[in-house]
Amino acid sequence: MDAVVVRRGESRPRLVGIPRPEPGPGEALVRTLRVGVDGTDRDVVEGTHGGFPPGEDQMVLGHEAVGVVVAPNDTRLDRGDVVVPTVRRPPGDDPDGRFARGEADVLPPEATLECGIDGAHGFMREYFAAPGSALVHVPEALAEWGFLVEPVSVLEKALDYAAASRSAFDWHPESALVLGNGSLGLLAVAVLDHDRTYCLGRRDRPDPTIDLMERTGATYVDSRETPVADVPAAHEAVDLVVEATGHAEHALSAPAALAPGGVAVLLGIPEPWTFEVDGGSLHRDLVMHNKALLGTVNASTDHFRAAVDTLAGLSDDFLADFLTGLYPPSDVEAAFERDATTVKTAVVFGTQ
Amino acid sequence: MDAVVVRRGESRPRLVGIPRPEPGPGEALVRTLRVGVDGTDRDVVEGTHGGFPPGEDQMVLGHEAVGVVVAPNDTRLDRGDVVVPTVRRPPGDDPDGRFARGEADVLPPEATLECGIDGAHGFMREYFAAPGSALVHVPEALAEWGFLVEPVSVLEKALDYAAASRSAFDWHPESALVLGNGSLGLLAVAVLDHDRTYCLGRRDRPDPTIDLMERTGATYVDSRETPVADVPAAHEAVDLVVEATGHAEHALSAPAALAPGGVAVLLGIPEPWTFEVDGGSLHRDLVMHNKALLGTVNASTDHFRAAVDTLAGLSDDFLADFLTGLYPPSDVEAAFERDATTVKTAVVFGTQ
Repeated sequence: MDAVVVRRGESRPRLVGIPRPEPGPGEALVRTLRVGVDGTDRDVVEGTHGGFPPGEDQMVLGHEAVGVVVAPNDTRLDRGDVVVPTVRRPPGDDPDGRFARGEADVLPPEATLECGIDGAHGFMREYFAAPGSALVHVPEALAEWGFLVEPVSVLEKALDYAAASRSAFDWHPESALVLGNGSLGLLAVAVLDHDRTYCLGRRDRPDPTIDLMERTGATYVDSRETPVADVPAAHEAVDLVVEATGHAEHALSAPAALAPGGVAVLLGIPEPWTFEVDGGSLHRDLVMHNKALLGTVNASTDHFRAAVDTLAGLSDDFLADFLTGLYPPSDVEAAFERDATTVKTAVVFGTQ
Repeated sequence: MDAVVVRRGESRPRLVGIPRPEPGPGEALVRTLRVGVDGTDRDVVEGTHGGFPPGEDQMVLGHEAVGVVVAPNDTRLDRGDVVVPTVRRPPGDDPDGRFARGEADVLPPEATLECGIDGAHGFMREYFAAPGSALVHVPEALAEWGFLVEPVSVLEKALDYAAASRSAFDWHPESALVLGNGSLGLLAVAVLDHDRTYCLGRRDRPDPTIDLMERTGATYVDSRETPVADVPAAHEAVDLVVEATGHAEHALSAPAALAPGGVAVLLGIPEPWTFEVDGGSLHRDLVMHNKALLGTVNASTDHFRAAVDTLAGLSDDFLADFLTGLYPPSDVEAAFERDATTVKTAVVFGTQ
């Protein structure tokens, strides 16, 4: 069957033929419909994030997938169910029971494998096998968009953790600032239901990402004119910041953009980078204004389930503009390319 | 009546005579028993924190108080009740209803006055008046120790916010690291009930603070040998860090001492201070390990109430060693002095 892999020593996605997987005990066989491409996939292809399965020289790419169950085997699923796979798998046993509880997202990276990212094959292939507990049911009507459940689940987790962190007092967030107008940032803008949402980028108009955020009612903030810390003076101090760039200066400036009692959630993943920070003012601001700075990665099974509902609530107009390219596996290199018109791309393996 | 004040242009506590306060509507009159001295009081006296009441050239010091109601007036209190005053007062109205809800601690500093710290007179005087809603009832048996309810309330808030921030997943903290062996740090060590607690300082043995922490079962960490970020290698990565020094490098190193899913709460208040940070690694660590960094200041009325129970649970042996000096108002300068044997001091205005 067709599969898109990255090979050791290469830095591009490659279409290859591999055997159809044999489901193990407790695993269903899933026929893949679509698989999204995101920044993490590009990092994996370039070798800057993740790693190959032990002892192998190629890894099947893709962690944002939707498919149809063709062989439920001994799972609770039915043939024909539309499903989205979670990303993390146990490297062996499940010592803390985190996988059993659907909370593998809180494990450190070294205690998990991530399909298509780190140490386990992904979903960019005609068929994949997965444990029933790692498959989240999706309504048939969402089959075409189900590859967005995974990125939305990451946002569900971020918002869940942010709300939890403020649950010790009466908190009614009204405004939010998303840092980054990549696909995750724009999806965040669409998912957030605050009265006022801002989205920071560094693009000149006309630009499809600015159009897209503005059509959801958000306000564009050009970081070249208004750095993160200047957002309160230029617009307002916000209750929530969602950092979706992986730019470390943004992460440490985010508290300065917050209103008292606000929370900044970090999703992007930077490399080591030493720079000067007014750590005294940052520390003082966090304390005197009861601010919070949280990192979150991946998502729990419950977040995947919540993401299904959230995705169902996004407008067709937004989704149609958000998805800027669908490609067959034979044209996968185009799905990984980016230019000024690219927002979100996916590889199509089949239809329902 | 006797009162301890700081005067504009001076940087020492001074005993003066001032009129006995006239309670306003809704206020009880309280006869003061004891008032604690902490680092904030020293900063106020030195002019590096807080400020005088508007239009006045002296401020009564003290925010850690316990007293006895002598005139309940139209409050729900009874004559003879032992009470602890909360610290924040509305500067005028209560626009968000935060004072009414006992949540003035989440207001920004500019929206509150702080008795004995910023813009309002404190409790270091024979009598003070306070709204009934700002007085927390304390069992008579705790009358001598009630001045510790306020610092314990700050810890209650920190632990409440820390637990809330991790309530989105199954979190069972087993280990904690307190940064700082000042009076708040040592009180934190006594309050924490983790299986393993570490306390970081920079003192040579023999030292009374090291003795005190070790008698509670905590392990001393000498920051000159083991910086914050080296605690995981030297001891273990901890689930909770409580920062009680106000040293900004500690605040930004605290996540490195955390286990995956851990949380660091910042209580100390630094001045602006620019230094180099590996912000990329800090950002990456927060994200990849789901870590949280929270600032908290002051405490809600519920935290004061919880602190009463917590204080009742501290051992008499600990409290006796923790309190290293009681001074009459006439000797208040001695209560503000610190040497290698000082842990906690208080000024005694009366007995029950």
